[in-house]
Amino acid sequence: MSHVSRSRIQELDAGDPLAHARDRFTLPEGVIYLDGNSLGAMPKAAAGRVATTVEEEWGRGLIRSWNTADWIDLPRTVGEKIARLIGAASGTVVVADSTTLNLFKVLAVALSLRPDRRVILSEEGNFPTDLYIASGLADLLGKGHELRLVPPAQVAGAITSDVAVVMLTEVNYRTGFKRDMAGLTRMTHDAGALSLWDLAHSAGAFPVDLAGADADFAVGCGYKYLNGGPGAPAFAYVAPRFLAGLRQPLTGWLGHARPFAFAPNYEPAPGIDALRVGTPSVIGMSALDEALTAFDGIALVDLRRKADMLWDVFVSEVDGAAPELTPITPSDPALRGTQASFRHPEAYAIMQALIARGVIGDYREPDILRFGITPLYLRYIDVWKAARAIGEVMATRAWDTPEFKRKAKVV
Amino acid sequence: MSHVSRSRIQELDAGDPLAHARDRFTLPEGVIYLDGNSLGAMPKAAAGRVATTVEEEWGRGLIRSWNTADWIDLPRTVGEKIARLIGAASGTVVVADSTTLNLFKVLAVALSLRPDRRVILSEEGNFPTDLYIASGLADLLGKGHELRLVPPAQVAGAITSDVAVVMLTEVNYRTGFKRDMAGLTRMTHDAGALSLWDLAHSAGAFPVDLAGADADFAVGCGYKYLNGGPGAPAFAYVAPRFLAGLRQPLTGWLGHARPFAFAPNYEPAPGIDALRVGTPSVIGMSALDEALTAFDGIALVDLRRKADMLWDVFVSEVDGAAPELTPITPSDPALRGTQASFRHPEAYAIMQALIARGVIGDYREPDILRFGITPLYLRYIDVWKAARAIGEVMATRAWDTPEFKRKAKVV
Repeated sequence: MSHVSRSRIQELDAGDPLAHARDRFTLPEGVIYLDGNSLGAMPKAAAGRVATTVEEEWGRGLIRSWNTADWIDLPRTVGEKIARLIGAASGTVVVADSTTLNLFKVLAVALSLRPDRRVILSEEGNFPTDLYIASGLADLLGKGHELRLVPPAQVAGAITSDVAVVMLTEVNYRTGFKRDMAGLTRMTHDAGALSLWDLAHSAGAFPVDLAGADADFAVGCGYKYLNGGPGAPAFAYVAPRFLAGLRQPLTGWLGHARPFAFAPNYEPAPGIDALRVGTPSVIGMSALDEALTAFDGIALVDLRRKADMLWDVFVSEVDGAAPELTPITPSDPALRGTQASFRHPEAYAIMQALIARGVIGDYREPDILRFGITPLYLRYIDVWKAARAIGEVMATRAWDTPEFKRKAKVV
Repeated sequence: MSHVSRSRIQELDAGDPLAHARDRFTLPEGVIYLDGNSLGAMPKAAAGRVATTVEEEWGRGLIRSWNTADWIDLPRTVGEKIARLIGAASGTVVVADSTTLNLFKVLAVALSLRPDRRVILSEEGNFPTDLYIASGLADLLGKGHELRLVPPAQVAGAITSDVAVVMLTEVNYRTGFKRDMAGLTRMTHDAGALSLWDLAHSAGAFPVDLAGADADFAVGCGYKYLNGGPGAPAFAYVAPRFLAGLRQPLTGWLGHARPFAFAPNYEPAPGIDALRVGTPSVIGMSALDEALTAFDGIALVDLRRKADMLWDVFVSEVDGAAPELTPITPSDPALRGTQASFRHPEAYAIMQALIARGVIGDYREPDILRFGITPLYLRYIDVWKAARAIGEVMATRAWDTPEFKRKAKVV
């Protein structure tokens, strides 16, 4: 049962002030892509830029391109562009390595700033790599650090005076639940602790205000809402007050104050550059750099507004068409990011049946269907049709085949 | 004064059994590229592969390509290809992150295997990032580990019973001096220590035999002699005897035994996959994967033989044309890699004058001109002409201008 008519959907698309942004992306025929929260679609400009980086800068410029194409400054120039999307001051964001590795670096810095405390506080159900890295770092330090996990509802009450760092992901990867970054950071500071935010499902999805929230550290992903391509390098943020004397333990040559002096002793580069380690993936970073032009002239507040409208259409239509799916993402926009998640015991097979019909979302253990709302390249008609496809798959039990129940290597 | 006639050079090129390999590369007009030891030239196939990865796999395949294009297995499939070039058994090499980060991982593993010892032995003049990482890890562990540096000639005598790990680069990045990997590894084992080899200037340059040398750990670079493109991901090797229970401290989700189970606790993947951390640079890894096809059908022993012949022509011609340059690379092939280095107080300006004439090598502090010999794409006429250009630059003092003395950001 449809709540919104096709003609109303057509009106929404016709009146969409962001409709033009879809032309900035390549999208395959016959696909409705609701997985931009896992791997963003390809900005057309990114493909051209990669070709230029490979064929011109590498092929013809060769080693000279470190200077002539400014490869050496990419971690900072791309960082500056991301800074504008996450409410960070100039000079506080650098692009390097992966989200996981950047988390290791900034968590180590944060712990070193609270030498008398031993607790890293996070929540059960946080993205596993964050928890793995925190445990691994705690073990490595060998000083009795503890990763303390509490249920999501108990985080605020658990910010006690033994906590060194409160490490949270702003938007939960499974539920889509969004944390109050400013409020929790305030409580964190009141307890004398430091805040570390994972923005994997925030950056590029909606306005983030790291400076306004007074966050201490943050990391985030280049290949989800920032559309930087598969395995795009990640970013890291350090609040201005910690930039002087910033030092992290992965002391590679490109984080050195004078890398080309080849000095025998490490001396961290001033400021955020101290988070650099080895030679960066120039091709991947070029793709991300160019991908960010897809945000040109578009205010994140407008992007979020459209995301919320798409979200409402999608979730209400799914509710009508497939009541067997249990929505688990809060409907209040203040309490969620832009994804919509549902539970069903056969979630994996249902998602495979949808993908076979060209509606691409993804599955998360143990029973979650996850759909990303990415208004740069999604139309109202896309989410409306996707909801109808979900309804058909459920009504016909199209998911109930051995083929769709067999799990692939990557789910 | 020329030692070898142009007609002899033409004979050498005409009779070169590897001459065909040059067609596998794109090389700009008017350039003689002697810096493949810093950034390898572009294999034509790599450019095509990158375009496919970006436009087909990302653009059209989207998230599905993790399975359909086997993105998830690239770290291992590319690792297997590199294993064949470095004398490593199947299942012992993985591609991930940067050389610097891989060094951190395997050094941490090595130290954990010698818990009663506190010394990391290396040599003065080793590549700085190796020394920085070792110092950084020692500080992080907080257990009193010491990075002990001795002059190159004293390494063998310094492998004492307090040494946990002997960490050396097989070929020195400045001098081109090559270590006896098998002999030093034997001495290392006799002292109860473990060997860690940096193959940055070895892999793809000549036959490396990690298994034959009984090396314990190794790391190496994807963008020098392996031609993987700027910032290509790096590789790491762990001897088979250490693969069971392998565990390193950068515990990211893709190094987990079941990454897509999203389990709360870290459990290392079995074998070499435990060295994986976060989401890899898929585009960069695809470029490296395809770049390795440039070695197809070519034996490294033949590559090395041609490298030595090119080296002899080049160094003898430079000796005749520019006696002011002091050769510092051993002439005995057993004692060197395939680069040729020279000293001169004005090395930086001389190199800039050469680059302005299309002869591209590089400069290393404080006074070294460095030329890489890469026989996959170099001809005898190239090194012969390069030597003549060097002679002209020296004879005319073409380097003696303020422009050529002004150092760029990346040297």
